[in-house]
Amino acid sequence: MTTTGKQLFTTLTADGKLTLEVSEENFPAPTGNQVLVKMEAAPINPSDLAILTSAADFENAEYSHGKVVANMPEPFLTGQKNRHGQRLPAGNEGAGTVIATGDSDMAKALMGQRVACVPGNAFSQYAIADAMMCLPLGDHSSEVGASSFVNPMTALGFVETAKMEGHDAIVHLAAASNLGQMLNRICIEDGMKLVNIVRKQEHVDMLKAAGAQYVVNSSADSYMADLRAAIAETGAFLGFDPIGGGQNTDHVLKAMEQVAASQMSEYSRYGSNQDKSMYMYGRLDLGPTILTPSYGLQWRVQGWLLTPFLQKAGMETVIRMRTRVQQNLTTTFASHYKAKVNLEEMLTKEAISDYRQMKTGEKYLVTPWG
Amino acid sequence: MTTTGKQLFTTLTADGKLTLEVSEENFPAPTGNQVLVKMEAAPINPSDLAILTSAADFENAEYSHGKVVANMPEPFLTGQKNRHGQRLPAGNEGAGTVIATGDSDMAKALMGQRVACVPGNAFSQYAIADAMMCLPLGDHSSEVGASSFVNPMTALGFVETAKMEGHDAIVHLAAASNLGQMLNRICIEDGMKLVNIVRKQEHVDMLKAAGAQYVVNSSADSYMADLRAAIAETGAFLGFDPIGGGQNTDHVLKAMEQVAASQMSEYSRYGSNQDKSMYMYGRLDLGPTILTPSYGLQWRVQGWLLTPFLQKAGMETVIRMRTRVQQNLTTTFASHYKAKVNLEEMLTKEAISDYRQMKTGEKYLVTPWG
Repeated sequence: MTTTGKQLFTTLTADGKLTLEVSEENFPAPTGNQVLVKMEAAPINPSDLAILTSAADFENAEYSHGKVVANMPEPFLTGQKNRHGQRLPAGNEGAGTVIATGDSDMAKALMGQRVACVPGNAFSQYAIADAMMCLPLGDHSSEVGASSFVNPMTALGFVETAKMEGHDAIVHLAAASNLGQMLNRICIEDGMKLVNIVRKQEHVDMLKAAGAQYVVNSSADSYMADLRAAIAETGAFLGFDPIGGGQNTDHVLKAMEQVAASQMSEYSRYGSNQDKSMYMYGRLDLGPTILTPSYGLQWRVQGWLLTPFLQKAGMETVIRMRTRVQQNLTTTFASHYKAKVNLEEMLTKEAISDYRQMKTGEKYLVTPWG
Repeated sequence: MTTTGKQLFTTLTADGKLTLEVSEENFPAPTGNQVLVKMEAAPINPSDLAILTSAADFENAEYSHGKVVANMPEPFLTGQKNRHGQRLPAGNEGAGTVIATGDSDMAKALMGQRVACVPGNAFSQYAIADAMMCLPLGDHSSEVGASSFVNPMTALGFVETAKMEGHDAIVHLAAASNLGQMLNRICIEDGMKLVNIVRKQEHVDMLKAAGAQYVVNSSADSYMADLRAAIAETGAFLGFDPIGGGQNTDHVLKAMEQVAASQMSEYSRYGSNQDKSMYMYGRLDLGPTILTPSYGLQWRVQGWLLTPFLQKAGMETVIRMRTRVQQNLTTTFASHYKAKVNLEEMLTKEAISDYRQMKTGEKYLVTPWG
């Protein structure tokens, strides 16, 4: 028995055309530990945009109902050579109702339940998911539960990473995001000091109203001095950057070094001996990352990805994190959306031009039956 | 009793003047575990230039006998704020004869011996050194022993780092340097696969003649393809970069990712799950490091410094490394010099313009009594 429904696909061809298209698909009956979820809500996360929009030119694209074809510029076309010609599903996470299951007890126990899941094709009316990765939502709606994996586990993962590496303070860039607000709440709950960096005064106000102690505005003339003061007070020499491009990470490393150097008793040609670490967990800015020679050689910049982190953290930690998410879905881990779109509305010029900007606090929710 | 001799000093003042100057100094009698070394030879290493020349304008500097005053441009003037006004000695390492010692047995045992040492003021006629850090040279001359610490321990440190992190292959940039030639010899001896990257055909030839199996010329049109082939063949996903500025590290990470992605069974929006690591151990190019979004987020770029490495490696490893250096000083760990200068000749326009370029195979040796 197969189920038929609409699903979004993204295809990049070697001639530089990116096609996003909604089409009717057949979903097979779930087997073993699989469940078939009727998807009711799925967020468009920055991590989805890498495959969905990338750097394509949607300003001059060809739009039709449920379809758009845009040109992909270099070096992004060649950089994604390995996907050329492949028709890929999209949408990391979402929530919906289990309408069929495989034979396993774990799968059967989810029958009829509303669950959050991570199927990889969440922009779809149906999805096959692994029962092991489903989070039962109880009385919560699919909208409330749609974002219960990526952002909550990432924010918790930052705090776990800091603890594992012996830190009790964190710097966070683009800190007014949904993820940033979550991280602020977690850090307050856990007593982890957090230096929030934002670009607008309204975001300073918003985070301060939410209890944040250290919020620095990178648009202010006093940015570097403010950042140094916050780092000196918290001892934050570990940071997380979702922007990637430009000098955001560079400026934080520079401020960390200036604080460390000012605390040294004598000059060293190699800079301070303070370890300085920045994790890049996204590429909101696809421009190159610039690292200036301003902080010696005692530093580290590296990527941070959820899946490898969870593998490294181990099952016990992951279960502890998920239980915490489940128990605090409408408080600590609440998400907010700017707009709801169905699969066809998702592919209009108006919607794409808006959500691809990934503006702070302006996340879209896809409701495939809407 | 004090000893009097000439020593080089470097002073950067807040008004942007960098002064290098030879002056008469008094050296106190050594105490405890100290020895007084009559310095006979000291190499000018890239790591010395950070404090000696940095980015100052030596083209338009004021030169006089044993002295030069040059302007330091921004951001390098402000970047070195912590040394403003300080009269600093220079010269990490060198060799000479012990002419006086402190009271400790270890110090007294070195009396009259020729030793290599790491005094931090090696550009001097005399230096106080720690007996613990002196390497007796036996019948070797000071010229042979002058570079027995920084380059040998760094090259050995790369191989130790790779082994500690579970690698059996290394990528090395600017691989025709004295250090690179040493690393090539060590890797051949230890069965560590080494991908050498150089900029000139003559350096390809030189390293191949020295037994190198993988040498890639970054000036060739086929550079990226050659690099990918060498990485695919060796499985080298760890590299060392002394250049820092520009896209050298970026290109290596990109090649590593292309090799890893080509070996994947399906496309991932996050790139391959292959860890890719680059250590930056110098800043031959003081321009910014450029990292493009071409290799997902499973990568790491970090500084590598000898002293923190040795601390991390522990005494047993350090002693093993030093013994190996001592036993192979004229073979594996031999250094070559382009020119010899005394302290005053070191401060002429001709010499500075030449050695500050840190051209491959053109290292200077300072002979303070020459």
